[in-house]
Amino acid sequence: MLKNKDLLGLKDTPKEEIQLILDVAEEMKKIVRSPHKKSPYFAGKSMATLFYENSTRTKSSFEFACSYMGGVYSSLNVATSSVNKGESILDTLKTIDSFGTDVIVIRHSMSGVPHVYAPHVRAHIVNAGDGLNEHPTQALLDMLTMRERYDTFRGLKVAILGDVKHSRVARSNVWGLSKMGAEIRICGPGTLLPSGVEKLPGVTVCATVEEAVRDADVVMGLRLQLERMTKGLIPSMGEYHRYFGVDEDMLAKAKKGALLLHPGPVNRNVELSFDVVDCRQSMINEQVTNGVAVRMAVMYLLTRDNKVV
Amino acid sequence: MLKNKDLLGLKDTPKEEIQLILDVAEEMKKIVRSPHKKSPYFAGKSMATLFYENSTRTKSSFEFACSYMGGVYSSLNVATSSVNKGESILDTLKTIDSFGTDVIVIRHSMSGVPHVYAPHVRAHIVNAGDGLNEHPTQALLDMLTMRERYDTFRGLKVAILGDVKHSRVARSNVWGLSKMGAEIRICGPGTLLPSGVEKLPGVTVCATVEEAVRDADVVMGLRLQLERMTKGLIPSMGEYHRYFGVDEDMLAKAKKGALLLHPGPVNRNVELSFDVVDCRQSMINEQVTNGVAVRMAVMYLLTRDNKVV
Amino acid sequence: MLKNKDLLGLKDTPKEEIQLILDVAEEMKKIVRSPHKKSPYFAGKSMATLFYENSTRTKSSFEFACSYMGGVYSSLNVATSSVNKGESILDTLKTIDSFGTDVIVIRHSMSGVPHVYAPHVRAHIVNAGDGLNEHPTQALLDMLTMRERYDTFRGLKVAILGDVKHSRVARSNVWGLSKMGAEIRICGPGTLLPSGVEKLPGVTVCATVEEAVRDADVVMGLRLQLERMTKGLIPSMGEYHRYFGVDEDMLAKAKKGALLLHPGPVNRNVELSFDVVDCRQSMINEQVTNGVAVRMAVMYLLTRDNKVV
Repeated sequence: MLKNKDLLGLKDTPKEEIQLILDVAEEMKKIVRSPHKKSPYFAGKSMATLFYENSTRTKSSFEFACSYMGGVYSSLNVATSSVNKGESILDTLKTIDSFGTDVIVIRHSMSGVPHVYAPHVRAHIVNAGDGLNEHPTQALLDMLTMRERYDTFRGLKVAILGDVKHSRVARSNVWGLSKMGAEIRICGPGTLLPSGVEKLPGVTVCATVEEAVRDADVVMGLRLQLERMTKGLIPSMGEYHRYFGVDEDMLAKAKKGALLLHPGPVNRNVELSFDVVDCRQSMINEQVTNGVAVRMAVMYLLTRDNKVV
Repeated sequence: MLKNKDLLGLKDTPKEEIQLILDVAEEMKKIVRSPHKKSPYFAGKSMATLFYENSTRTKSSFEFACSYMGGVYSSLNVATSSVNKGESILDTLKTIDSFGTDVIVIRHSMSGVPHVYAPHVRAHIVNAGDGLNEHPTQALLDMLTMRERYDTFRGLKVAILGDVKHSRVARSNVWGLSKMGAEIRICGPGTLLPSGVEKLPGVTVCATVEEAVRDADVVMGLRLQLERMTKGLIPSMGEYHRYFGVDEDMLAKAKKGALLLHPGPVNRNVELSFDVVDCRQSMINEQVTNGVAVRMAVMYLLTRDNKVV
Repeated sequence: MLKNKDLLGLKDTPKEEIQLILDVAEEMKKIVRSPHKKSPYFAGKSMATLFYENSTRTKSSFEFACSYMGGVYSSLNVATSSVNKGESILDTLKTIDSFGTDVIVIRHSMSGVPHVYAPHVRAHIVNAGDGLNEHPTQALLDMLTMRERYDTFRGLKVAILGDVKHSRVARSNVWGLSKMGAEIRICGPGTLLPSGVEKLPGVTVCATVEEAVRDADVVMGLRLQLERMTKGLIPSMGEYHRYFGVDEDMLAKAKKGALLLHPGPVNRNVELSFDVVDCRQSMINEQVTNGVAVRMAVMYLLTRDNKVV
């Protein structure tokens, strides 16, 4: 059982609950991998996805997570919806709530949207990304990927590279990993680092990628939104790759067998070199599988033993 | 069992069948409200939605209704479909029919479309809105909401306010409510009242909202399409609200504890004042829940004991 | 059991496997037609559709096929997806693969796309149309429709009319039917016949539709893409219909009771005259039902007894 009704971010999720989610996700992963992906852990429950920002990958991941546990879902297409023609987010959420929905998965470009509205609905809210703030299930899947390799997070050296400023993935990882005792090294172009990043728990800012990667257990590239370039935040893709990208030489400076993570989709030869994406240390596809498992765990734990009135 | 193969409107639905649908919906609502929303009432059956006009809310409502009863569905995205590239509606319906679909839910901007084509397909057609004509499941959910509060429709005073002319919701309510013996009071701007409305069964046209609302058991606001203003049918949102909107003062003129209904989404401070939307008498979220229940009842009753050849 | 992991085309599908798919599809059709469309043949399995070209009909057909066998699916909306914002097809497929998906149904405007990528994913790939190359499940449903009427394909005279050049349906039919011993007669405007078509196995090119249709057992019209006209490949719709369309008179020149097929949606009075579409010999709706049955058979056979690692 989780303490909170909702999963809004890892900042507010206690260490023990992160542990519990990862434990359950490990079991759930066996279902995702099995030839018979059917389980009763969300049977009789329902999910709705409400994505104000497009995401095919995350949406499908939640849909499969729901289905593999015997649940049902409806995906609200906000783009073509009356929902975005003047209706307030709260009114939309209350409508979905009144469908009898158990879990509402929401993504919105504005930070804090799920936090503001979650207390006003009966359904369990899962934040699938709010502005520049958090994307907790992504960090949890990253953490599951790390835990499968390493015994403990304590002292684990995790390099997070690139556009930290605009990355809710980075932010959720910082909250989660620091709570578990990992050391986080951050490196990116000055224009793409948030002010005060060095004051975040567990974080060291490194001047060069090499410094961040040296002896690291985990190297995580962040997706670069290509529109950052047109906005003048980076000079060019090529130059970004030269200074902040990861190739095989750079990865070799990390601990032997270090994990390479990326939330996907990768811009090949920008965040990661073409070859390194497919190397043995790349966990990118494993992360996707772990994403389904983590979402199953979260939805199961949020709804278990709950009485709906 | 229902007499007709299809649910096209309440005009042609006998009183006893309306009663039966509401009785079954009452039972279905327990499922929507329960922590285990799984039932066998549509197991082995399939539904297709074919919405030529967008509607996220109604589409999701039907999808959950289908799923909560163990059925399967496919939602045809007409907007991006070859379906709207020259293929006739009948050919599209025959294709969907041939998928083995049990229920086809159709919405179209042209009045009468479901009525014209329903006889030509094997599947049961549910009209989810045809032009300015009918939207029977919406009226049924309104009626369920009323019946949960009041013992009988006989003599029930229902005020329907606003853009009656363009409202298929209003039309279906008039047919259904008058059949059950309710008194319907209609009030709206002259430009938004259909000619001959006063001749509809059970209807009285009122000169002012106050007159319509006084001593009413139910006050129903209709959604105003904002494009009505640009078309010159109403002078301004503010003026519309002043003369035809409902606020707490106006609602207080109705019977004590009168129900406030609205098909949603509400334009706050246009049809209803901001505060009144969330007041205790507002049934707006209850209506949404009842919508799922009514759709379950309709699909169950249409398909039960039917032999598909 | 099928020899290949994937169904990419009929060119590479042995005769015995075509036979097996049709045998199983015949059984599956009973489910599609039954009042209780529930079976366990894809239970615990999952499907993803990835359509880079729009197709509501084929997508829904696969969705129902999956659902009628107890499977679950997620349909990736490529149009609104990050998927088409620079991510490579292979990376997208690997992501979907990592969701635990058993079958990926893919459609792409470029010939050969499924063939190139299928070996790199664990999931079974079903080609739902690749450029001008193949659309195997469509040909299989055509063949099922023929086999339901005729005892054997051997010596069956099949006239395929119209835009053969741009038709992957025609191509798959040629590969499949010739393998089973049918005689294929092809006729279309010179601008819409691929060069070298006369060298395809089992194919005779006819100068006139009348020549192709005379004494035929099956008459198949192909859908004409209306943009062919604007590109100058045909003079006008009317002229196309006069010389290459099929009406009742033309159909009467075929064998008595010959089957009329069309992949749909029909442009009425272009490929087929208005009346002939709905005549007794028209199998167009039967083809749709057979499409669901064939897709069930294919997905069942591809995934049966397979161990997923």
